[in-house]
Amino acid sequence: MLGICYYPEHWPEEMWANDVKEMCELGLKYVRIAEFAWSKMEPREGQYDFAWLDRAIDVIASAGLKVIMCTPTATPPKWLIDKYPDILPVDVNTGTVRGFGSRRHYDFSSENYFNEAMRITEVLAKRYGEHPAICGWQTDNEIACHDTTHSGSENAKVAFQAWCERYYGDIDSLNKAWGTIFWSMEYQDFSQIELPILAVTETHPSHNLAYRRFSSDQVIRFHDEMIRIIRAHAPDRFVTHNFIPMVDTQTDNYALAKNLDFVSYDNYPLGRTDLFFEHMSPEEFKPYMRTGHPDFSSYSFDQTRGVSKKNFWIMEQQPGPVNWGHHNPRPENGMVRLWSWQAFAHGAEVVCYFRWRQAPFAQEQMHAGVKRNDNSKSQAWYEIEQVRDELASANIDTSAPVKTRVAIVTGTINQWVTEIERQGDSYNHQQVEFTYYTALRQLGLTVDFVSTDCDISTYDLLVAPCLPIVEQGFIDKCKAAKAHVVFGPRSGGKTSELSLASQLPPGNIQQLIPLKIHSTETIRPDCSELMSFNDRQYDSKLWREEIVFPETVMTIAKYHDGRPAVARFENTTYIASLTCENFLVDYFEVVAAELGLDVVKLPKDVRIVDRGSVVFVFNYGHQEQRFTAPQEANFVIGSEVLAPFDVAVYKR
Amino acid sequence: MLGICYYPEHWPEEMWANDVKEMCELGLKYVRIAEFAWSKMEPREGQYDFAWLDRAIDVIASAGLKVIMCTPTATPPKWLIDKYPDILPVDVNTGTVRGFGSRRHYDFSSENYFNEAMRITEVLAKRYGEHPAICGWQTDNEIACHDTTHSGSENAKVAFQAWCERYYGDIDSLNKAWGTIFWSMEYQDFSQIELPILAVTETHPSHNLAYRRFSSDQVIRFHDEMIRIIRAHAPDRFVTHNFIPMVDTQTDNYALAKNLDFVSYDNYPLGRTDLFFEHMSPEEFKPYMRTGHPDFSSYSFDQTRGVSKKNFWIMEQQPGPVNWGHHNPRPENGMVRLWSWQAFAHGAEVVCYFRWRQAPFAQEQMHAGVKRNDNSKSQAWYEIEQVRDELASANIDTSAPVKTRVAIVTGTINQWVTEIERQGDSYNHQQVEFTYYTALRQLGLTVDFVSTDCDISTYDLLVAPCLPIVEQGFIDKCKAAKAHVVFGPRSGGKTSELSLASQLPPGNIQQLIPLKIHSTETIRPDCSELMSFNDRQYDSKLWREEIVFPETVMTIAKYHDGRPAVARFENTTYIASLTCENFLVDYFEVVAAELGLDVVKLPKDVRIVDRGSVVFVFNYGHQEQRFTAPQEANFVIGSEVLAPFDVAVYKR
Amino acid sequence: MLGICYYPEHWPEEMWANDVKEMCELGLKYVRIAEFAWSKMEPREGQYDFAWLDRAIDVIASAGLKVIMCTPTATPPKWLIDKYPDILPVDVNTGTVRGFGSRRHYDFSSENYFNEAMRITEVLAKRYGEHPAICGWQTDNEIACHDTTHSGSENAKVAFQAWCERYYGDIDSLNKAWGTIFWSMEYQDFSQIELPILAVTETHPSHNLAYRRFSSDQVIRFHDEMIRIIRAHAPDRFVTHNFIPMVDTQTDNYALAKNLDFVSYDNYPLGRTDLFFEHMSPEEFKPYMRTGHPDFSSYSFDQTRGVSKKNFWIMEQQPGPVNWGHHNPRPENGMVRLWSWQAFAHGAEVVCYFRWRQAPFAQEQMHAGVKRNDNSKSQAWYEIEQVRDELASANIDTSAPVKTRVAIVTGTINQWVTEIERQGDSYNHQQVEFTYYTALRQLGLTVDFVSTDCDISTYDLLVAPCLPIVEQGFIDKCKAAKAHVVFGPRSGGKTSELSLASQLPPGNIQQLIPLKIHSTETIRPDCSELMSFNDRQYDSKLWREEIVFPETVMTIAKYHDGRPAVARFENTTYIASLTCENFLVDYFEVVAAELGLDVVKLPKDVRIVDRGSVVFVFNYGHQEQRFTAPQEANFVIGSEVLAPFDVAVYKR
Repeated sequence: MLGICYYPEHWPEEMWANDVKEMCELGLKYVRIAEFAWSKMEPREGQYDFAWLDRAIDVIASAGLKVIMCTPTATPPKWLIDKYPDILPVDVNTGTVRGFGSRRHYDFSSENYFNEAMRITEVLAKRYGEHPAICGWQTDNEIACHDTTHSGSENAKVAFQAWCERYYGDIDSLNKAWGTIFWSMEYQDFSQIELPILAVTETHPSHNLAYRRFSSDQVIRFHDEMIRIIRAHAPDRFVTHNFIPMVDTQTDNYALAKNLDFVSYDNYPLGRTDLFFEHMSPEEFKPYMRTGHPDFSSYSFDQTRGVSKKNFWIMEQQPGPVNWGHHNPRPENGMVRLWSWQAFAHGAEVVCYFRWRQAPFAQEQMHAGVKRNDNSKSQAWYEIEQVRDELASANIDTSAPVKTRVAIVTGTINQWVTEIERQGDSYNHQQVEFTYYTALRQLGLTVDFVSTDCDISTYDLLVAPCLPIVEQGFIDKCKAAKAHVVFGPRSGGKTSELSLASQLPPGNIQQLIPLKIHSTETIRPDCSELMSFNDRQYDSKLWREEIVFPETVMTIAKYHDGRPAVARFENTTYIASLTCENFLVDYFEVVAAELGLDVVKLPKDVRIVDRGSVVFVFNYGHQEQRFTAPQEANFVIGSEVLAPFDVAVYKR
Repeated sequence: MLGICYYPEHWPEEMWANDVKEMCELGLKYVRIAEFAWSKMEPREGQYDFAWLDRAIDVIASAGLKVIMCTPTATPPKWLIDKYPDILPVDVNTGTVRGFGSRRHYDFSSENYFNEAMRITEVLAKRYGEHPAICGWQTDNEIACHDTTHSGSENAKVAFQAWCERYYGDIDSLNKAWGTIFWSMEYQDFSQIELPILAVTETHPSHNLAYRRFSSDQVIRFHDEMIRIIRAHAPDRFVTHNFIPMVDTQTDNYALAKNLDFVSYDNYPLGRTDLFFEHMSPEEFKPYMRTGHPDFSSYSFDQTRGVSKKNFWIMEQQPGPVNWGHHNPRPENGMVRLWSWQAFAHGAEVVCYFRWRQAPFAQEQMHAGVKRNDNSKSQAWYEIEQVRDELASANIDTSAPVKTRVAIVTGTINQWVTEIERQGDSYNHQQVEFTYYTALRQLGLTVDFVSTDCDISTYDLLVAPCLPIVEQGFIDKCKAAKAHVVFGPRSGGKTSELSLASQLPPGNIQQLIPLKIHSTETIRPDCSELMSFNDRQYDSKLWREEIVFPETVMTIAKYHDGRPAVARFENTTYIASLTCENFLVDYFEVVAAELGLDVVKLPKDVRIVDRGSVVFVFNYGHQEQRFTAPQEANFVIGSEVLAPFDVAVYKR
Repeated sequence: MLGICYYPEHWPEEMWANDVKEMCELGLKYVRIAEFAWSKMEPREGQYDFAWLDRAIDVIASAGLKVIMCTPTATPPKWLIDKYPDILPVDVNTGTVRGFGSRRHYDFSSENYFNEAMRITEVLAKRYGEHPAICGWQTDNEIACHDTTHSGSENAKVAFQAWCERYYGDIDSLNKAWGTIFWSMEYQDFSQIELPILAVTETHPSHNLAYRRFSSDQVIRFHDEMIRIIRAHAPDRFVTHNFIPMVDTQTDNYALAKNLDFVSYDNYPLGRTDLFFEHMSPEEFKPYMRTGHPDFSSYSFDQTRGVSKKNFWIMEQQPGPVNWGHHNPRPENGMVRLWSWQAFAHGAEVVCYFRWRQAPFAQEQMHAGVKRNDNSKSQAWYEIEQVRDELASANIDTSAPVKTRVAIVTGTINQWVTEIERQGDSYNHQQVEFTYYTALRQLGLTVDFVSTDCDISTYDLLVAPCLPIVEQGFIDKCKAAKAHVVFGPRSGGKTSELSLASQLPPGNIQQLIPLKIHSTETIRPDCSELMSFNDRQYDSKLWREEIVFPETVMTIAKYHDGRPAVARFENTTYIASLTCENFLVDYFEVVAAELGLDVVKLPKDVRIVDRGSVVFVFNYGHQEQRFTAPQEANFVIGSEVLAPFDVAVYKR
């Protein structure tokens, strides 16, 4: 189903009725409202004005549309900041206060803000909790966006000290857990502990990891209390949150999602491609500048589905150029339709477009809408019409669960470790993980994302691109699982406190494959070397481990100097070097064949999602592509010939 | 005529007489003094010492030279800073105080400094206002240099709040004008308004634009009061100011110049080329590293002439290597002469060299002078001698007005809009404007710069490279004008408050050409595409608009995908993409032919200024060049054969 | 002899005995301990705990090993910071406090810290000064590391004002010495003087130079008092300090070393190569990424030997990958041995490896040790065994002095001048000096480093790559010396206060060679030009001087435009441009031949150290190399055929 993000407070009230009428024409079913409207709801402290919102909901409801109500807590109004200046967060890189004037100007450790945010949430929940037009709630907006998980405030420091006391119990335990004997950092009291910022040189990795765990917990505490209040007053309504890409939250996404009914994602393929693939050469980048990378949205979709282990919503879908990339191209015609179907293919139940009409003022006035600011229809309108019609005719059950035998093992803590202990400046955790993901997708495999806490018993292939901290519990699950488990370099080397594994890296993984890492090196990105597998050459780059093992372990690939680079023992593979996606594609093809997983070598920029009874095919490329569907294929959209940016769906 | 910048206080008094004698030998007529000498004039608060200055003026006057007196306000002394620490400005990017120890360490919003600066100005004006040797005054020095227009101080904040109250009248008007409903930024009182700095993410564009207007007004208030005081005590003397390049003032240059008798410019071709053309490849850059770009000084000259609509002075002319570029080459022999004549050609009445003798100490000791610090003569000396002799023999009236039928429409507000709303990180307003300028100059056209407030009725060709805010008044003038008007991309899209034009971009320009922009995209600089015009291919890059129009509008050029890129309707052309100077040269040639403007395709690096009765030709190149003068040409300098870095002037 | 850095406090006490037993097996003689252990020695203010240290020393001593005791002052504990927060230094680039959480978090201008550091030093010195197992002391650790010489604190400002008063006597002298008349910077009182940081634009060079002299003096004051206290209580023990590369101390290294018995150096070839040669293309860099640049360690060794004019120790020798480069490769097998012998060749008496066993926790857990954290032996162990055996069999006297007839004239003040007055952003003093050094080394010449205060009478060739301030005393020494003196560009141009030489650059050097510099230019690094010498072409780049001289001076090399680039008069050569190492190799070969210095053109990446009775040959290359030894050569290590990364030593 389809929906829309709407800001009635931005437009003259006399436009509302026609807006809603047109929403119906476009086949939209859901309208998200009230996000960011705190100053309109409560223009002065305690003086509420909900009349406008009541009327807006009435107009929407009268057309049979369902409302998603938002808490407006991402934008506390100025009068509130002036009353409690400690709401403002502090930049951890400079120590300066991050002021009012944009959004997300709050510190998760400000008790004043915690109380005020819960107050406005409760006021809203009490007023609208049982409103029949409101089907569900969105908490806050894009939590953690703009690097707001971490604050360097005094509030944060005091809260961190209390967190440390709860986590470690007594100061000697903390000293021992961290290894503060190093560089005379021993503490006598929790009140001595500073935030690990603005020091002379790099701070203690265990201290850093604790700070990140704490900051994540602060976000979750805030978010969970908001959910609790909504649920207390809004029975039988769903509660969701619109996530930014999981890599940008700096929060344990699985824990953040835990108490939600389902997870939503804000999908901006071009803005994200601009930022994430900034390092790409123009030759690589240009083909995707108006389509987005074929796998980046899917990567987010599959992660989003992973954190709540069920289907998800797209709460905001890019409808045209945005304003926040370094450069902001226009989508190729057809891409808004393609992105919508891509979301459905990966498990979206609802796709809402952001936003109804381009705002004529303020920071996002260059961000496209479904309608232009003069109320004319943009290109997105016509593509959404097509999606509306195709949804109706194709009759696909978007609530059917996505099933696969392949999963990537992920978790924010892996990213934290690699950010805290760089060792090589060019190591980028998200790029490492994405390389494994795209390799699997190029083989047509559908990918789940699981944390080490998840049930892994149903998978045939588990891939852990970077899992520095591997607890015994996960090892036990691997032993019990039927899956072939592939570990990338840097896995298993650390304890839960970010010390070195006492038995040498890869630590507990040695229980699955008896190898030890005798040294680890990092290499300049322009000084790559070669490695060989099946008589073909691939890049070995950035991070390289020296692995040593007994004869029972098989050498799969070798470095340029003949030493082993990839090793396998029974159902476990250990890849000791960062390598290119070409190697991963070729190696996963071999492994998949062994596991009986169907792989398909797709033309460049064509992607497939095989959900058993229904198969989706996408052409991200600028050329027409053909593929061969099975005999029994019943095309409900398109055909075996895919125009550029085209979609085909068949049932069987 | 020629002049010099002189700092008698830097040298033993016994050297003065000989210095002045040599100035006379060199044909200098004007001596600028007293700049930066506050601590010498007033060593302690209220204890004045003008004896040295009296004597210095006497020595200069006794040789028949004229003095330009400066207010020393660019360098408040330490005792004053210690008395009023709030004089120091605050860095808007970091929030830290910008301390004493260099120059321009004052905040335009410090009332203490305003009062003190006007006090010393009045003391000076009263003492020297009617001194017969003093022909005129220079205010301050290079106002706004070192990014000092903007301050993040508490003083600035309070002054900005008062400015907002004056500008908007009441807070509801401000809320409406800005669109503060977005992201809950509604204000209840002017005292809530912060400076738009140091926020969590980007601040509100209307808020930003108001802050820039305010900051500009603060500079002008300061400067206008200084002029008023000087005029009150210095009858019949001119008042001028030495501008840095207009793009660097962050001030409305037309308003800043309004109360001056004429405008002066500090011309440093190599330093400016080093900074402005930093992005150039070495192949492009190297030919100009010791000459400067052939059009950059002219660009500044024509802008300088534009802001006061009359001829100007060069108050500081580079005589050799400077010290403040990233790299500081030595001018090719001949360039000091060439630059001098180039200034005269573009409307300079006087060229003063900076400085007489290289300072042996302090920050500028590596900045060349006409004489070296050991009192020997530098290369510049001999070139100035040549200019002196040529001026005498060529007998050119430097006060004759520069006339042309071509103008570029400019204004600092255009730059503000593009800096506030980047949309594409690679968009650089000055480079955009300069590309149009150099294209016109390569065709031999003389160019005026006008603001939208100027009379445009005399021009045949008006070029607006980037004019986001187009008020109705300017549209009316365009309708009434005879000129062909060419708009570059990004024009007309914004209201005066930096909101989106309600009728879509290009807003009011639609009254001149009926087209609408349906989407705008920005592109990575390394992902350029092609556009075609008259069967030739050109670059389309960085910024590209999707234009839609009826059949009455003519397509002039097309994007690579066949959509229109440049359109024309009657006397209006709209260029929807940033393109290369090659396209502009070729297109302006066609337009000029139609308008009956004489164009001449010059050899690369040769430039011509045709002022009717006198024609100047310059060879910026490293090769000898020939050109063909008309039959009636009477060469007063040089000939039709130009050596490298050579000048020719003929009358007719 | 060999030694080790050991941190018994990081390990269970029951491991100590076996550790010491294995150290003996490995042939180690010295054990450095107690560095960074303040919080272990004094867990709370005044509560000392030395029992653990007593026991550790006992264990070490019982095996016959000698102890080097460290003062733990590089890491003041948290309780001390909390008692005296003014211990923390202030970042000179941002003005923010540099907090606790890493190391070196102290301000050399904090009197509280000065007193506390001397207190703990005295406590230690009294307790262990006459302990029979302790042969010597190390002061602090890597003074100045992490840019800690400079602080922007209030303490530093007050101390700087007092320093200025002592240095200049009265404020008028300071005003005159600096030239504060420029830009109205005249002071009336020393209390007005700020630190030259955080100003609006560049601060006064003389002010800057004074601040650097002051900061250097603060470091030396601190260090000298520490030495004094140790000596008072530790008779007949040596005192040394472990230096980082001389270029990174921002301190007068000759003065810092003056009161030490000898100087030690911490040798990390790969980390240093990663940082210092970051600008190298991958083609140039990759061959050295696992070996280090063949001359970088030698460059440091020779500088280290220079500052105390005697042989030195390596206090920390890299044994494997480190953790602090941008990228951290693994040494090629053989390099730990090669580096050890390279150190002995250049005058090391003892080489201590850092560290015994890889730490399992904290910031350096990825820094290799001789043993891995699981107590297994790393590659370094086996290479040290080989060094142990070779030392025993080769029987080389490491205490024999290194003698040579060639010296480079160096000094931190040269670096200060080039950092203060950049003039060209690409000028890098260390790279300039290193280029001269590597050219001499490629000819097989052994190089001393001397300051202008040193005796230079014994040298035949003196090379001053960059000596901006040349006092008369040094000129007199040059006149008296027999040596050919070669000056690089930028030499002699400045007075001792960083003003311009009144007789023009090269100032006093004109007494040795009668030439004047008429102009100086700097050039973009990508806009190099050519110069010619002996009909061959070389690069002239970055910094180029226009030199003028009488016919008695000989032109050695010419710029591309035919003007002189290198000139010679009698025994003095002046090189007026930055040039490439190829020119320097070729020119030094000519000069050396004239001086009767034996040079040898070595294969690329082969280096030789000829100490007369013993000759060391090193192959840094990845290919086998052959060289020809003299007939009388008696190989004690290796042969005329050098495997990759191999060493040969012969006696004669």
